Amino acid sequence: MKFNIKDVARKAGVSISTVSRVVNDSKVVKPETHEKVMKAIEELGYKPNAIARSLKVKNTKTIGILIPDISNQFYPEVVRGIEDIANMYQYNIFLCNTDLDPEKETKYFDILAEKQVDGIIFISNIVSEALYKKFKVYDIPVVLIGADYEDVPSVSIDNVGASKSIVNYLIKKGHKRIATIVGKNSDPVMGVARLEGYKTALREANISIDNELIIEGGHRYKSGYEGAKRLLELEEPPTAIFATNDEMAIGTLRAALEQGLDIPEDLAIVGFDNIDMAGKVYPALTTVAQPMYEMGAIATRVLTKILNEEELETRKIVLNYSLLERESS
Amino acid sequence: MKFNIKDVARKAGVSISTVSRVVNDSKVVKPETHEKVMKAIEELGYKPNAIARSLKVKNTKTIGILIPDISNQFYPEVVRGIEDIANMYQYNIFLCNTDLDPEKETKYFDILAEKQVDGIIFISNIVSEALYKKFKVYDIPVVLIGADYEDVPSVSIDNVGASKSIVNYLIKKGHKRIATIVGKNSDPVMGVARLEGYKTALREANISIDNELIIEGGHRYKSGYEGAKRLLELEEPPTAIFATNDEMAIGTLRAALEQGLDIPEDLAIVGFDNIDMAGKVYPALTTVAQPMYEMGAIATRVLTKILNEEELETRKIVLNYSLLERESS
Repeated sequence: MKFNIKDVARKAGVSISTVSRVVNDSKVVKPETHEKVMKAIEELGYKPNAIARSLKVKNTKTIGILIPDISNQFYPEVVRGIEDIANMYQYNIFLCNTDLDPEKETKYFDILAEKQVDGIIFISNIVSEALYKKFKVYDIPVVLIGADYEDVPSVSIDNVGASKSIVNYLIKKGHKRIATIVGKNSDPVMGVARLEGYKTALREANISIDNELIIEGGHRYKSGYEGAKRLLELEEPPTAIFATNDEMAIGTLRAALEQGLDIPEDLAIVGFDNIDMAGKVYPALTTVAQPMYEMGAIATRVLTKILNEEELETRKIVLNYSLLERESS
Repeated sequence: MKFNIKDVARKAGVSISTVSRVVNDSKVVKPETHEKVMKAIEELGYKPNAIARSLKVKNTKTIGILIPDISNQFYPEVVRGIEDIANMYQYNIFLCNTDLDPEKETKYFDILAEKQVDGIIFISNIVSEALYKKFKVYDIPVVLIGADYEDVPSVSIDNVGASKSIVNYLIKKGHKRIATIVGKNSDPVMGVARLEGYKTALREANISIDNELIIEGGHRYKSGYEGAKRLLELEEPPTAIFATNDEMAIGTLRAALEQGLDIPEDLAIVGFDNIDMAGKVYPALTTVAQPMYEMGAIATRVLTKILNEEELETRKIVLNYSLLERESS
């Protein structure tokens, strides 16, 4: 069913430009006229937002980015990747920080739609149902980074495989008492997938899973620091800690150094992400490198392909990770 | 002299919409017509860009941000401050990374002008002459963060005073052999103002300035690391190092820890900025806290005042800094 603005105008008995003014929320339309047009739109089964978009004279050459928090170290590198490719294809970007707040996410999505962005990149581990509905209602292409959700095109890594591989690495180093500090269980990536990788690695090595060694942290430095303090107070403390992101691993590092532990002799510490800081702390952090810049760049390339109606080879791109062995293990 | 598009149309003998097409660089205008219109504009003494802006139907409610590099740790916090205030006043932001490349700066300025942003926030220590000219040619309000340049409204701190005060602090701790790793001398903030503060503090304490102890670094971790290695190889190495930003201070920290030095017993290290990482390294870094979030927020408030034609109490806002004493000194 292809939209035709003429149908709406004819049905409502108004001019095309009046329809345009109504769907663009212009103030100069009389309430009665507004109502007539909206009724015609409803009866024809069209969505006002789609209409608003169809009235666009041209592309705005703008991409919206929904990001949890630009001041979190993981994201700037991703955004840089987005921006470089966006520039190459002459798109500009609109940046919105959502703070992982579902209300802000849907609010910003509306704002971006109103601004007539050509497409949206959504960076988050979690896609709320409300937001997914927005994806469907609006006629705006969306690409996800970090998560893989339903039919939405996405760029991510194999989080289960990656965390399994870093725990395997610790096992091969001779560790048997390996603890983990994971994300909230509402977080399908840091709280679920990476925990699953940890458990799978232990299970396959016939190491029994000790719930005492699994701490629910969050994603910030402080939760890593506090989680590590609890682990180090155990009667039988771990010889290695896998924090499911680098921020928490760096908090773990501090807790261990404060207690005068030798890293990695007394305690091995590994993280996940390879944020900028991971290579700059001392001892430098062993971690799983997510290709952050590439994730941003490739997601943007996927989006430009969708916008140019080029064919996508796959809607779900899974990038390679790599293990970076540094000084902390 | 108030612009009137009718004057141009009359003088060129074309319609108003043709003038509009010409100044918006539409392709459908014949070269002869284009020339006629441009000639009329020139003779009337109007600037095409100002005309393009005067044709705006309404404000775009968009602020452009020119930033050196969002993946540098200093900036995300500033951008967050900008974004929060922008949201409060219902502006969206356009983010452009300039890499401190003057060509990119002017290119992006043009793009932002073309996108009809309502105002621009420029974050940098350096304002090039070419860019300053753009500020003047376009009719777009600009607010600077970090630098103070000519008549442009700005938000910054007293960089000379701040670096003098952190060097004074080292002197009071009993240090006499204090080195510094500064920015390039083309950088008026990190290479000039902060160096001046260092020299003033030493001079006032009657400590002679030893050029051997002044290293031109840059602004990245690596230049701090390499600068510190050179300082520590001196016949008479310093007992304290002041790096003029935290990234370089953290590089300095690594160089010292690698050599087995005790921090702060063998060597005190202090930085500047208070980036997120400064409080998370071990030992945590003593530094000058720039109010990064506030700088972004206040600059944005200044911009919204200009856009709403509210009165500015001052065009040059100088914010307070504070000394954060942590473990590294």
